[in-house]
Amino acid sequence: MKNIKLTIEYIGANYFGYQKQAKGKTVQTTLETAIAMVFGKEIKTTASGRTDAGVNAMGQVVNFEVDTTMPIDKVALAINAHLPGDIRVLTSEEVDKNFHSRYSAKAKTYIYKLYTGEKLSVFDKAYHMQCPKLDMEQLKKACKLLLGEHDFSSFMSSNSNIKDDTIRTIYDAHFEQNGDYLTFEITGNGFLYNMVRIIVGTLIDIGMGKKRLDVFDKLFEGNNRSFAGKTVKPNALFLKSVTY
Amino acid sequence: MKNIKLTIEYIGANYFGYQKQAKGKTVQTTLETAIAMVFGKEIKTTASGRTDAGVNAMGQVVNFEVDTTMPIDKVALAINAHLPGDIRVLTSEEVDKNFHSRYSAKAKTYIYKLYTGEKLSVFDKAYHMQCPKLDMEQLKKACKLLLGEHDFSSFMSSNSNIKDDTIRTIYDAHFEQNGDYLTFEITGNGFLYNMVRIIVGTLIDIGMGKKRLDVFDKLFEGNNRSFAGKTVKPNALFLKSVTY
Repeated sequence: MKNIKLTIEYIGANYFGYQKQAKGKTVQTTLETAIAMVFGKEIKTTASGRTDAGVNAMGQVVNFEVDTTMPIDKVALAINAHLPGDIRVLTSEEVDKNFHSRYSAKAKTYIYKLYTGEKLSVFDKAYHMQCPKLDMEQLKKACKLLLGEHDFSSFMSSNSNIKDDTIRTIYDAHFEQNGDYLTFEITGNGFLYNMVRIIVGTLIDIGMGKKRLDVFDKLFEGNNRSFAGKTVKPNALFLKSVTY
Repeated sequence: MKNIKLTIEYIGANYFGYQKQAKGKTVQTTLETAIAMVFGKEIKTTASGRTDAGVNAMGQVVNFEVDTTMPIDKVALAINAHLPGDIRVLTSEEVDKNFHSRYSAKAKTYIYKLYTGEKLSVFDKAYHMQCPKLDMEQLKKACKLLLGEHDFSSFMSSNSNIKDDTIRTIYDAHFEQNGDYLTFEITGNGFLYNMVRIIVGTLIDIGMGKKRLDVFDKLFEGNNRSFAGKTVKPNALFLKSVTY
């Protein structure tokens, strides 16, 4: 048996999220159907984690075990032949038996794309969220406050059923600005359900002057969802990479 | 009566081209429906020219006459309220009575987006055509040969019914390279049916070494469609701007 690691990208718009579920097409079921076509049998896969409905990935990681003589670098090509145009295997490689996409992950990086101009082009609409001009100095300070180990339960969807461990460590958080285009990038050891989208909603409020930086005091006390910003829309969010 | 000029952008993918036609949704009919909603009656519009099915525009120009007291810069906003997300009026302005989107046009600029890398991302697929690495020196020379006044009948769809004037003047043609991303930009006093797409197909053949530069001698003799390259796909083509 070989343990195969796939790095995949996908457009979230047409899927009910990454993870297999009762109703609706998901990235996982589409991927597993393609893998079954290649190897002639159903194979269970594991991903680094789910992404919500509409969320994109540039570097989701998936692994599965299979007994095959196919050159492993050709597996990507073979699976792609059975995938729709909005999901693509970037690389396939053989990894150690102990490698587990989810449990071996050390960090994940997400990016969120904002447009702060007046007129969001029809060509950018698919992957950007439009918002007013933001105070970049305030945002820099807010990014610094996010760093380190915190209880992020205030940044968690109230629908979430994770009641135990809501402590996460953020290694990096910053904005890159290119004219009216603003990309927020955040790296951490893990993220709660909707956490990145609620962080971005909170940062937008701070950048607009609707919230002050000391809101983080309240937020990091935990279970203060009402002090955080809105859950911004999923289509501007990308799982950029997973680090092992 | 006021003569109103609109500059519009649209994603061509969901339309059977710009121009009104018997079967299928077009940009023009969608736009005219929105305009009718704003002014309460059907209004005929004129565009700088048609764009083919699937072709995008960043700066198509349309004009129409209407008797209205609405501030003209607000017309864009009003029409946008009735347009789907893939068509957008960028600006609305009042112009001279004699202004005609098509007859007053002095030049048009198109761009075509190529990707010459190994792996076209799912996020770039919508607006790029993938092709092999191209010889940029040869392409520079080819662009120079395109300049000036020529008979472009060899670069015209064989379905075209324009049998008379196939002389056009090209003012500028060049490539911009950004890593694996290559943008071809061409400006001329007018373009025949499929002309830009057949020029790009020919340039790709030249860049791949499949055609030599002296193919232009044959092509500019006129009516030699078989010497030109393929008609490349429409989704990577954009009408960038119209100059008056």
